[in-house]
Amino acid sequence: MIEVGVIGGTGYTAGELIRLMINHPKVNINTVISRSSFGKNINLIHKDLLGDIDLKFSKDLNVYVDVLFFCLGHGKSKKELKNIPKNIKIIDLSEDFRITEIFEKRHFIYGLPELNKKYIKESKNIANPGCFSTAILLSILPLAKKKLLNNNIHISAITGSTGSGKKCTNTNNFSWRNNNISTYKIFQHQHLKEIEKNIIKLQKNFYSKIYFIPYRGNFSRGIISTMYTNSIFSLEENKKIYKEYYYNHPFVKISDFDIDLKQVINTNKCILYLRKEKNKLIVVSIIDNLIKGASGQAIQNMNLMFNIDETYGLKNLKSICF
Amino acid sequence: MIEVGVIGGTGYTAGELIRLMINHPKVNINTVISRSSFGKNINLIHKDLLGDIDLKFSKDLNVYVDVLFFCLGHGKSKKELKNIPKNIKIIDLSEDFRITEIFEKRHFIYGLPELNKKYIKESKNIANPGCFSTAILLSILPLAKKKLLNNNIHISAITGSTGSGKKCTNTNNFSWRNNNISTYKIFQHQHLKEIEKNIIKLQKNFYSKIYFIPYRGNFSRGIISTMYTNSIFSLEENKKIYKEYYYNHPFVKISDFDIDLKQVINTNKCILYLRKEKNKLIVVSIIDNLIKGASGQAIQNMNLMFNIDETYGLKNLKSICF
Amino acid sequence: MIEVGVIGGTGYTAGELIRLMINHPKVNINTVISRSSFGKNINLIHKDLLGDIDLKFSKDLNVYVDVLFFCLGHGKSKKELKNIPKNIKIIDLSEDFRITEIFEKRHFIYGLPELNKKYIKESKNIANPGCFSTAILLSILPLAKKKLLNNNIHISAITGSTGSGKKCTNTNNFSWRNNNISTYKIFQHQHLKEIEKNIIKLQKNFYSKIYFIPYRGNFSRGIISTMYTNSIFSLEENKKIYKEYYYNHPFVKISDFDIDLKQVINTNKCILYLRKEKNKLIVVSIIDNLIKGASGQAIQNMNLMFNIDETYGLKNLKSICF
Amino acid sequence: MIEVGVIGGTGYTAGELIRLMINHPKVNINTVISRSSFGKNINLIHKDLLGDIDLKFSKDLNVYVDVLFFCLGHGKSKKELKNIPKNIKIIDLSEDFRITEIFEKRHFIYGLPELNKKYIKESKNIANPGCFSTAILLSILPLAKKKLLNNNIHISAITGSTGSGKKCTNTNNFSWRNNNISTYKIFQHQHLKEIEKNIIKLQKNFYSKIYFIPYRGNFSRGIISTMYTNSIFSLEENKKIYKEYYYNHPFVKISDFDIDLKQVINTNKCILYLRKEKNKLIVVSIIDNLIKGASGQAIQNMNLMFNIDETYGLKNLKSICF
Repeated sequence: MIEVGVIGGTGYTAGELIRLMINHPKVNINTVISRSSFGKNINLIHKDLLGDIDLKFSKDLNVYVDVLFFCLGHGKSKKELKNIPKNIKIIDLSEDFRITEIFEKRHFIYGLPELNKKYIKESKNIANPGCFSTAILLSILPLAKKKLLNNNIHISAITGSTGSGKKCTNTNNFSWRNNNISTYKIFQHQHLKEIEKNIIKLQKNFYSKIYFIPYRGNFSRGIISTMYTNSIFSLEENKKIYKEYYYNHPFVKISDFDIDLKQVINTNKCILYLRKEKNKLIVVSIIDNLIKGASGQAIQNMNLMFNIDETYGLKNLKSICF
Repeated sequence: MIEVGVIGGTGYTAGELIRLMINHPKVNINTVISRSSFGKNINLIHKDLLGDIDLKFSKDLNVYVDVLFFCLGHGKSKKELKNIPKNIKIIDLSEDFRITEIFEKRHFIYGLPELNKKYIKESKNIANPGCFSTAILLSILPLAKKKLLNNNIHISAITGSTGSGKKCTNTNNFSWRNNNISTYKIFQHQHLKEIEKNIIKLQKNFYSKIYFIPYRGNFSRGIISTMYTNSIFSLEENKKIYKEYYYNHPFVKISDFDIDLKQVINTNKCILYLRKEKNKLIVVSIIDNLIKGASGQAIQNMNLMFNIDETYGLKNLKSICF
Repeated sequence: MIEVGVIGGTGYTAGELIRLMINHPKVNINTVISRSSFGKNINLIHKDLLGDIDLKFSKDLNVYVDVLFFCLGHGKSKKELKNIPKNIKIIDLSEDFRITEIFEKRHFIYGLPELNKKYIKESKNIANPGCFSTAILLSILPLAKKKLLNNNIHISAITGSTGSGKKCTNTNNFSWRNNNISTYKIFQHQHLKEIEKNIIKLQKNFYSKIYFIPYRGNFSRGIISTMYTNSIFSLEENKKIYKEYYYNHPFVKISDFDIDLKQVINTNKCILYLRKEKNKLIVVSIIDNLIKGASGQAIQNMNLMFNIDETYGLKNLKSICF
Repeated sequence: MIEVGVIGGTGYTAGELIRLMINHPKVNINTVISRSSFGKNINLIHKDLLGDIDLKFSKDLNVYVDVLFFCLGHGKSKKELKNIPKNIKIIDLSEDFRITEIFEKRHFIYGLPELNKKYIKESKNIANPGCFSTAILLSILPLAKKKLLNNNIHISAITGSTGSGKKCTNTNNFSWRNNNISTYKIFQHQHLKEIEKNIIKLQKNFYSKIYFIPYRGNFSRGIISTMYTNSIFSLEENKKIYKEYYYNHPFVKISDFDIDLKQVINTNKCILYLRKEKNKLIVVSIIDNLIKGASGQAIQNMNLMFNIDETYGLKNLKSICF
């Protein structure tokens, strides 16, 4: 069994990690650290876990674990990392090591299995991708692999409220967000850097511009993103490119029909829908932002790092399309 | 024109007051006080008012107004009240003077026009009713008037999120409240006192018990309440009792058909639906918690206090049933 | 492996059965019958199952199965039942055999495991309970067992939209139901008969009245119900009664704290919250209407009928509290 | 008073017309025609109007009216139009006469006041614009006026459920649409023709491409659209261009700050938010699809046709931002 620790145990991504790992056949949830809720039973914070787990939040890491998931807010991981013994593997869910890859002699691999599977398998430190980055990169990577990204890329995408974390803000107040929708960080979302950096890993001569309009949606979970760019290939040829690329990647599916967000909610899937209109290829991409966009992907990375089946704990998730 | 001031200008009820009074034919919104947003244009906080009002928040009451609406949180009105000249009329939207009627030599009338119209007309200080109290009392008062409340009263009611104000809490976080529902303060909601006290004004020998289950609903606005109690009268007789009671009250309507919450949203109406099952009379009641349950009723009270048409500024509200 | 068939395969409950049984360790989904979608791949209707199942809808039952789930609309099961060989076990999710227990020489057991576990284990035909009935009975049965139901029972409950099925109606049109709430069938809901009949199985002298106010909520899944009645026992004594009753029932949990609907969504759990106010015991009950209130309970019944672990396929469901 | 008739009286746009015109100072709602609901009181269908209107649906147009609003489904107006006397003015809310301008010797003007005010004033027949077209054109027209549209235009936009009408479809079933989001008609929405045709009226040499991604949102009302294209001017210069263009148009506002959909709900406003990122001008546009995108704009057109204040019946709408 893999002995697992979680730090920052009260937030959304930690909760999802625990929910997923309770049913993981090769994992023992050893310790969940939360300074704010130290001593409380986990199911007093993650109240749906009543009857599923009987463990209290710890104050510090005082036992050995094989891997430690960092579920702290952006910018907080570096400080915590200093105190962690070097032999403990790290999977960081913040943005802190997605761009800066080396810190305290730890080398972080960008944990998108559909891009870096072989490196993840050998790595000891993972920078888990952002949710928008995951949805968007998965809609683009097959083109990058073939060096086909030679024109502007246009993206609009809509995120659920859990994407911004559990902390109260003006934009996640129910009375405001209910029935509302708004843009934010137009062309300037911080995930753009992550996206560009990782496209370049597959297509070194990528000089195109990415125009990205993010929206805040009035739903709790999920991201839908729509990307389009020029393509000289037919729809069928493009589908072939995508299917080949994802041949060995169990969580990415290509749909022949229009898709809607709820097809992936509560799963680790990414479903892509391709369409060709004249010279433009359009790719719609949907993920659950908390699973494939965060905690599920983190577990997928852990599985790879420990050389067990990539789908353990993730394959049998019951989707919830209503 | 009535010169109006509002204190506590950034919250939901203040926003609704301003929205309603902009179109009131006899009102001039003279001053809106907010210490936290002092100096900002009102439409930077109430952003939908862009183009509708060009006024800044004031820091203090430094001009004469005919009436001042208190839109502060519960418990804060008393402190502020001390500084207000005695010749300024007060309409307080908090719960502070609903039970304690006399404070600093000011005598507060409970501002439910369907109960106290003649007293309101002569009063200088109004304690505006709570939202649950309004919905529930309007479903009960005709029976109290006829001294017919001689048995237990059972109530369930569901409130929208704006009922708990603008401040961030665990229960108005979008990710939590979306698609959720929960009970709270079972049999102990603070509005029960208000309800009982005002029933007794019509039926002195009221000794029955009221059992009230409040729910938090996953919608922004509105309250639906369902009351039942014994009745020896037929449905038609009961309808007659209710119609007679509300004959001179323009905002209460009796529906002959099943009702749903959105029939009253964005209006000052209360719609009642009566039903008789064996010996039980059931009365379903719906209001917009921010209008008939707060700011609309406050304006209705102001209209009465200034001896102008009770419906000014409230009659022509466009409902929004979708 | 249990060979399973489903008839009426396009609706919500059939979809949930399939989602649950895909991951059931002892089940093979042998045949899914739908006359309207005959020949189509199942994942064209239940689109979230893309990549999870590769099976087409059948037109008729033309293979042997060990058990057949009936997911037809109310009133349609009887006609279909005539054509089914007597050696095939039946689990009917409609209301058709909940009151009328014997049909075509088949004897139906009411499939509430927390009431009838030993009979279910020996039965060949199950009438799966209604969703409201499940939530409500589970909040009442421990009292019936102790013959403590000697006073009126008052219930309010709110259901999600999936409770009324997939067919288009005025009340499940998005534009109407979104942000709306309404009562229906006040004191006359058809599940009352089911509830009373099954209380009497535990407490023969049950003559009290049940007053039940059902509401349509603006969420897709789940039921919350609140019941209160007189009790001479303390809160702790009542909790003891409930805990004893559910000692051997793995899906019913007693919470010591306030509960909210999303604690059980996408699980087969029922969580109860008990509270005592003066002489009244209050029990709040929450279930996922499509799982514990329908398809999950149907699988629980199947597990019992085939003498395998009651929790197979149901224990490891990842809840979705956001 | 303008004597008004409405044909197709049970749908969403007819309901909104009635709600708006009840409070219009110069209108008498003379007749509302519905063949399906002939003889019923209007407030049995538009149930929120209880107490506001006491008029029954008519079967046919059997009285003289000054203007008749057509609120029929797309494709049905032509047939009905044949029976209407030529002296009655027509405002058609379908798409039937937006492209084909002449029918039965009637010449239809595209009823976007911010484009065609002077023609509308002189016209007898109006083709009321589509909701997407309204939101999008208002974000583009000032550039067309200055002949500045010389590059590709990229648009994403999200619509509420009322945009697709009252009729039941798979995509407006509550259980499906709640918490969901999806694309549709990518690059092929029927409003593109309307948009291009009307841009060309201001900029004859418009040869650029418009790429439009429409989304179905999980809210009832409203449209948010985001447009971007190249601009050689600064943000301030662009704002000036927009402010000049809308100088005489009371319903279009330019916001200096980020906007969100609920700023315009239940109003006839369109609020625009401009932003410049490098060489791209971005314009976010929000409207209420049923008011500025349909019935409110229809009344604005009527006001112009009858040479009365353009804002009558539309100016004092209470917005509902929660």
